[in-house]
Amino acid sequence: MGIKPICEQSPEELQALLQETKEAYAAFQAKKLSLNMARGKPAPAQLDLTMPMLDTLKSDTPLISESGDDCRNYGVLSGITEAKKLFASLIGAKEEEMFIAGNSSLELMFACVQIACIKGIAGCTPWSRLDSVKFLCPVPGYDRHFGLTEYFNIGMIPVPMTEDGPDMDLVEKYVETDESIKGIWCVPIYSNPGGIVYSDETVRRFAALKPAAKDFRIFWDNAYCIHHLTDTPRQPLTINAACEESGNRSIFYQFMSTSKITFSGGGVAAFNTSAENLSELSKHLGIQTIGFDKINQLRHVKFFGDAEGVKAHMELHRQILKPKFDAVLNALARELKPLGIGSWTEPQGGYFVSFDAPCGCAKRVVQLCKEGGVTLTGAGATFPYQKDPDDRNIRIAPTYPSVDELEQAMELFCISVKLAALEQLV
Amino acid sequence: MGIKPICEQSPEELQALLQETKEAYAAFQAKKLSLNMARGKPAPAQLDLTMPMLDTLKSDTPLISESGDDCRNYGVLSGITEAKKLFASLIGAKEEEMFIAGNSSLELMFACVQIACIKGIAGCTPWSRLDSVKFLCPVPGYDRHFGLTEYFNIGMIPVPMTEDGPDMDLVEKYVETDESIKGIWCVPIYSNPGGIVYSDETVRRFAALKPAAKDFRIFWDNAYCIHHLTDTPRQPLTINAACEESGNRSIFYQFMSTSKITFSGGGVAAFNTSAENLSELSKHLGIQTIGFDKINQLRHVKFFGDAEGVKAHMELHRQILKPKFDAVLNALARELKPLGIGSWTEPQGGYFVSFDAPCGCAKRVVQLCKEGGVTLTGAGATFPYQKDPDDRNIRIAPTYPSVDELEQAMELFCISVKLAALEQLV
Repeated sequence: MGIKPICEQSPEELQALLQETKEAYAAFQAKKLSLNMARGKPAPAQLDLTMPMLDTLKSDTPLISESGDDCRNYGVLSGITEAKKLFASLIGAKEEEMFIAGNSSLELMFACVQIACIKGIAGCTPWSRLDSVKFLCPVPGYDRHFGLTEYFNIGMIPVPMTEDGPDMDLVEKYVETDESIKGIWCVPIYSNPGGIVYSDETVRRFAALKPAAKDFRIFWDNAYCIHHLTDTPRQPLTINAACEESGNRSIFYQFMSTSKITFSGGGVAAFNTSAENLSELSKHLGIQTIGFDKINQLRHVKFFGDAEGVKAHMELHRQILKPKFDAVLNALARELKPLGIGSWTEPQGGYFVSFDAPCGCAKRVVQLCKEGGVTLTGAGATFPYQKDPDDRNIRIAPTYPSVDELEQAMELFCISVKLAALEQLV
Repeated sequence: MGIKPICEQSPEELQALLQETKEAYAAFQAKKLSLNMARGKPAPAQLDLTMPMLDTLKSDTPLISESGDDCRNYGVLSGITEAKKLFASLIGAKEEEMFIAGNSSLELMFACVQIACIKGIAGCTPWSRLDSVKFLCPVPGYDRHFGLTEYFNIGMIPVPMTEDGPDMDLVEKYVETDESIKGIWCVPIYSNPGGIVYSDETVRRFAALKPAAKDFRIFWDNAYCIHHLTDTPRQPLTINAACEESGNRSIFYQFMSTSKITFSGGGVAAFNTSAENLSELSKHLGIQTIGFDKINQLRHVKFFGDAEGVKAHMELHRQILKPKFDAVLNALARELKPLGIGSWTEPQGGYFVSFDAPCGCAKRVVQLCKEGGVTLTGAGATFPYQKDPDDRNIRIAPTYPSVDELEQAMELFCISVKLAALEQLV
């Protein structure tokens, strides 16, 4: 049978292809595999890279920070100086505008939203007392951002992504005219799941926003800032540099963590915003905790030394991850491209491939995969309220499985996409 | 001059004593010392005891938990099995009713209050939507408990402490008749600052409470459960055993941490409540974080092995702390007892000596100490809203300074108490 796009195939050809695909699906199902491409988890081989970090602090290592604080004791809510320096250098921030925390950057995002909701920020009314509070949500996006937003009963407005980041005409219109818009979720570099890197122009337009609400904040989740997949790393304009230019110093909250650099189950999270914002938030954070784990902060600094050390470490991650992304992309190119089914991103970094099935097929694909032994992120997860209006987007997370497992999982994935598409057509 | 109680001294004798004390104060002030007895911080020598913990996990140590989870990766929100076992054995809880978190038990207390405030617990209206929400606050108590409560605009009702714990007649009356009473702060063993150990009868009465509010919870902060200062450790009835007896399984939230066992700046916090409560709260906690630092949990388990290991370690703490408490108590007995000024606790464990100055003198004592070079916890800190109605209670924290420093600090403390008392009398 000649391989040509399904839109050019005759009804008989489509029927034959459907039959063939059903057989392939049944054959795969008979293997009774159990594979998982659902979450953006590092693979064991990636975690192995960080094992030497455990040797950096020993029983005879002095645990006094650069500023003379005993990392073992209470105090130093905002984290140790040397950790501030290290993280600041990774995201182009000022050391004195850093706050270093525990294992989770999500925890910091939650705290920021919670403080604004319960107590209010910048002298404004707490969001919980307002009739309408909304966040802009570039889509497709990160399900945990949306979950957190929904948790606080904050309305979510989807904003389409372009090649250069969120549709800034729309963002400007909303933010600058509607006082109920209090935030926007951004993953500016290698976005989750689209792998999009915001253009300098996009970053500048963010920095130049003139929000209707004084307590509007850009939630700049720089989760993948150094998670490159090519040897020509993307290094777009930083939000700090752009806001320095625009004078809009307090408009953003920036987050990052080492969850996908060192250990997801034992890393360090960092937060960056203007000194003014930091001073305001610290008063609230000091009610929640006496302080975060400073010993693990020191452990990270000793392991990496400086930003160059982190970048060298990320190159080792890339060597593990690149073949996995290739396995996914090769399967898609081989199995789906000739048939003209679906479209997908070819990310230069980050943790995901974003796949768009034919409209109305995403749920069916995820179901078929599940019944065939491969767990994917739920269809719709990349949209607010888990509602993908086109039932189209599927997030593929290639990092955790081995290349062998991925090849098998992608075989099923491609069969399932074909099957769903053909079921719809025939 | 004969030493007799000031109440028996003549005006002339008092005048002479005041003059002498003023001179002693001036002489001390001239030394220009700077000492701190403000916070319950472990001393460096105590932190040294835990340094070998850093050698327990090395680059070649397998970091797989008992249940087969990779501690280095995401997941396992409630903590690793072996950490649950260890902490459960320390507080007499069931492993499956444990939740192991990060560096801060305060963070868990905050989360519990915040969840009840914002979302509501046990199917009840969120506290933030009620006109009146109040907590009972046994006094003197822990300033951070009160700070957290005030943060959420929860009213605080002081409840006096007896030798056996909070005045239970009053507690029962409030809790069982007033639906706006939603919680009570308890430090059941070696309370902060009074060092009081709740009697078994008190614990039973807590467990038998029939709250008017379905969402009333006892916040059982077991911060000092194994922090003994004598060789006859107090081991009162556990809240778990008492609630098992009473059938009131979901009435308490129990907290503890290793902040004063291993590292205050790199420890592990634990939470214990009924499986039903835990299941409810976990859904909320899963919005805030993907998980806590499991590697540090494993590090703690490997270091201690079991509860016996922790207890042996606490004996080493005791050897460091006992002479410090003795230095404080000896100074008070030597300088103040013969004059009949003030009263104080002689704790069998915990981190504090609770000192009651003559009424109306606490603020003055703290001020005199400060101006003489010794920082104390602010007067009033041990009461809700920092308001000690009698301006009497001062929390002495003997753990951080060396014995030498303590002896100097206590010299000034005793001079300051005498001076304040005499100023008031003469």
